[in-house]
Amino acid sequence: MNLQRLFRPDGIAVVGASRTEGKMGYEAMANAVKFNGPIYPVNPSSDGTVFDEPFIDSVTDIEGDVDLALLAVPPTVVPDVLAECGEAGVGGVVVYAGGFAEASEGGERLQQQVVDVAAEYDIAVLGPNTSGFVVPAADLLASFAGGVERFESGDVTILAQSGGVAHQLAFHALREGRGIATMVGLGNRANVGFEETIPYFDADPETDAIVLHVEGTDDGRALLETCRASETPIVAYKVGKSDVGEFAESHTGALTGDHELYTAGFAQYGVPTVESTTELFDGGLALAKSPLPTGPNVGVITAQAGPGIIIADRIQQAGGRLPILTEETQDRIGEILPGITYAGNPVDTGRPMPAFGEVVEAVATDAHVDIILVYELYEEALGFPLAALDGLAERVEKPVLFATEGPTASMDEDCIALRDLDVPVFTSPERGADAAALLARHASLTAPVDQEVSVDV
Amino acid sequence: MNLQRLFRPDGIAVVGASRTEGKMGYEAMANAVKFNGPIYPVNPSSDGTVFDEPFIDSVTDIEGDVDLALLAVPPTVVPDVLAECGEAGVGGVVVYAGGFAEASEGGERLQQQVVDVAAEYDIAVLGPNTSGFVVPAADLLASFAGGVERFESGDVTILAQSGGVAHQLAFHALREGRGIATMVGLGNRANVGFEETIPYFDADPETDAIVLHVEGTDDGRALLETCRASETPIVAYKVGKSDVGEFAESHTGALTGDHELYTAGFAQYGVPTVESTTELFDGGLALAKSPLPTGPNVGVITAQAGPGIIIADRIQQAGGRLPILTEETQDRIGEILPGITYAGNPVDTGRPMPAFGEVVEAVATDAHVDIILVYELYEEALGFPLAALDGLAERVEKPVLFATEGPTASMDEDCIALRDLDVPVFTSPERGADAAALLARHASLTAPVDQEVSVDV
Repeated sequence: MNLQRLFRPDGIAVVGASRTEGKMGYEAMANAVKFNGPIYPVNPSSDGTVFDEPFIDSVTDIEGDVDLALLAVPPTVVPDVLAECGEAGVGGVVVYAGGFAEASEGGERLQQQVVDVAAEYDIAVLGPNTSGFVVPAADLLASFAGGVERFESGDVTILAQSGGVAHQLAFHALREGRGIATMVGLGNRANVGFEETIPYFDADPETDAIVLHVEGTDDGRALLETCRASETPIVAYKVGKSDVGEFAESHTGALTGDHELYTAGFAQYGVPTVESTTELFDGGLALAKSPLPTGPNVGVITAQAGPGIIIADRIQQAGGRLPILTEETQDRIGEILPGITYAGNPVDTGRPMPAFGEVVEAVATDAHVDIILVYELYEEALGFPLAALDGLAERVEKPVLFATEGPTASMDEDCIALRDLDVPVFTSPERGADAAALLARHASLTAPVDQEVSVDV
Repeated sequence: MNLQRLFRPDGIAVVGASRTEGKMGYEAMANAVKFNGPIYPVNPSSDGTVFDEPFIDSVTDIEGDVDLALLAVPPTVVPDVLAECGEAGVGGVVVYAGGFAEASEGGERLQQQVVDVAAEYDIAVLGPNTSGFVVPAADLLASFAGGVERFESGDVTILAQSGGVAHQLAFHALREGRGIATMVGLGNRANVGFEETIPYFDADPETDAIVLHVEGTDDGRALLETCRASETPIVAYKVGKSDVGEFAESHTGALTGDHELYTAGFAQYGVPTVESTTELFDGGLALAKSPLPTGPNVGVITAQAGPGIIIADRIQQAGGRLPILTEETQDRIGEILPGITYAGNPVDTGRPMPAFGEVVEAVATDAHVDIILVYELYEEALGFPLAALDGLAERVEKPVLFATEGPTASMDEDCIALRDLDVPVFTSPERGADAAALLARHASLTAPVDQEVSVDV
C-alpha cells in the first residue's frame, strides 16, 4: 500500500465541506486550507465558496490532481463516497465518522464495505472513527480539531490508536515547546494500521523516533515483527492493565488484550514500554534528540540532593543502572570542586554554581557512563550551563538529558535556549529519571545478543 | 515547642547578611526584605546598609522584637550564633548551612550542640541543611532561593525533608498557576521535624491539605501517629524504593528505610501515598480544593474515548472503582444525548458538545458516585462547561476534578476560569486519574471501620 499519497499529498478534497461553523465539515476545511496546495471543498448541496474555494459537487468533478480526500460525511454514505474517490483517482482517504466496527454489528458490516471498496481502488483509508493526522512541517492539517495549526515541526512521530490520545500527545508537546514530525490517530484501522504506518515513518527522513499508543490489535505478533524491523527507535504505551474491555471495544473496535503479554512481547522485540502519555512523548523525545545510548548506565549530576535521591531511586527501579564513576572522573571532580557534597553517582554539587557545567562534562566523558542526566533548580543569577551542554551529546556520543524546575518567567528563556541546543528538558526529577531509564531500557533491549551491555563496576 | 514565632514572626534577623550578590547572605536578605515587618541584617564585619536596612553587629544588639533569625553563616559558628539568638529572645531559627549530621562525625557533634543550645533557649530550629521556608500570603520568604517571591498563596502546605524537593514542588505549583499555603524544607530536623510541623499546620487555618516528602526518619511510628492525629488530610511521598542509602545518608543524615513498611504504615494510619512529586502536589490540591469524598467510587465523563480508557484503566489500578451508574442517571443521559457513544462509566460523549456540562451534572448527582472526574480536549468554539462546574462540588458535596489538554494560548484563559471556580485542573489523563484515585484511596483509608464504603453495584 502506498501511504505517500495519504501523508504527502499534492491536492486535497474535503468531502462534506460546510460553511456552518462548528460542523465537522467546516472545521476540517478551516484546517485543510492552511495547506500550500490545491484544496477542493466537495458538497453537492452547497453553492458558492467556502474559505474562498468554490464548492464542487463530487470528487469525480475535480479538475486537477487530488491525492487525499478528507471525508466529513455521515457513516452510511462513506462506502459510496469512497468509490467516487476511487473513480477520481484519490489515493488516500481519512474517514472521520464513527458508527463503524466500534459501534454495532451493522457498523461492522459497513466497515467491511469500506475495506472492500478501498481494496478495489487501492485506497489507503485512515479511520474510520479518527480525528485524522497532522504534518506541521507541511502545514498539512488533516484533523478537524481546533488549534492544531499551532503544532510546531519536530522529529517525533505519534502513532496513536485513538485520535483523542494522538491530540493529547501533540498538544502536550506544544505546551512543552516541542514539535512533532507527524501526528496520526489510527482509529478503526480499516486498512491503515500500525503495520502500515510504522514502516512508512521508519523511512520518513523527518522522523527520528516513533511513539505508539496501543489499545489492542487482532494480530499482536505482526505488530511486534513490524516494530523489530524498524530502524527508527520506537516506544510503546499499551493501555488496558485493568478490565476496560467493554468500554475499549466501544471505542476503536479492538479488545485491549493482555497487557502483560504485550509488554513482554514489546520487550522481546526491542521496544521499551511506558505507562503514561507524558512518559511516552518524553521517551520519544529523548530517543529522537540524542545519539542512541550503547548501554544502560546512567551518570547523574544534581545540584540538589533531594531531587537527586528521587532520580537515583527511580532510574534503578525502571531498568537503568548507576555505575560507580571511574577514579579518573572522581579525581577530576575533586579538583573542580574540592570538598564536594557527594562525588559518587549521583554527583551532588550541593547548589548550582559556576563550575556546574564542568562537573557535567566530567561525568559525561566517564567511560562507565552511557547516558547523562542533569538536574538543577533554576537560579536566575547562574542560568543553565549552556556552554558546557552545547554539542556535549555529540562530543561524547551519548544522550544528555536535563531536568529542572524554577520560576517560570525567568527560566523559560533558558529552557528555550536548551531546546535550541537539542537538549531534552523535563520539569520534574521523575520525568527526567523516566526518560533516562527509557533510554537505558532501549539500550538493553536492542543490544546485540553477543555484546555485553554492562560495565564491570 | 512553639512554632508560631518561627512561621509567623513579627520581626526577622538575617545573620550573615551580605551586600555581595550571589552570596547566601545576600540572597536570604533580598528575599527577607519582602516581608512587611522589621528586618534586621546582622553582620559584625559590615557597615552601612543592605537593602536600605542598617547592619547590626549582633542579634543581641537589636532593639525591637525579633522572633525569627535566618542564619546565613558557616556551620562551625552556628552554635554560638544560636546562643546569641537565645540571649536576644529569638524563638525561631533557620539554619541554611550544611556540614552537620549529613556530612561527618564532626558534623554530627556540631548538630548535637545545635540541639542542646536550642533546648536551653527553647528555640525552634529549622534545618540545618535546608533552603528554608516560604509563606506567600505573609510575603514571608525565609528561603535563599531566587524566584520564591513569585509563589502565590494557596491552601496546600508542603513539608519536604529536602529543601530542594520543597522548592521543586512549589515551583511546579507556580508553573501550574497554583498557590501554596506554606512551603517548608525540613533538612536535618535538629528539633523541627514532621512530628512538630504536622500538628502546627493541621491547626493552621490557611492549610487545607498537607503533602509530605519523606526520605526517612528515626521514629517511623511517631510520624505515623502524628499523621493519624491530623484532621487536615495528608498525602505522603516516601522515596527510596531501591538502594539509595549511602547517597541519602549524605543528604539529610537519614537512612531511607524500608519503603514497603512505610507505605503499609501510612495506609494503616489513613495516609495515601504517591510515587512522584507531580502526583504529590496534584493529590494535595485535590484534597484541599474539594469536599472530601465519602467513598472510592469514581464517575468519569469524557469527551474522547481514548483518554477515557486510559483514565478508567489507571483509576482501577490505583485503588479507585468505577461503579455502574444508576438506571436513573443512565436514563437522564440518554435523554440529554440520544444515541450517546457509551453511557456506562466512563460516560463517553464522543466529542465536546454544548450538552457536555449537563452530562457532567447528571453523573455528579448519581447516588453510586463519590468522586467526579471530567476529561475533554479543549475546543475553542465550546470552551469548558464553566456554568455546570460552577459550585458543582459544593452542590453535590463531592470532589470534582478536571483533566484536559489543548492549544495553550486559547485554553489558558479557560483554565484560569476553572481554577477560579476552585476546580483542580490537570493537563493529562493520567494526572487526572491519579488524583481521582488518590481521593478514592483517601476515602477508603479514612473510612470509619464500621462504615461500608462500597456501594452495591
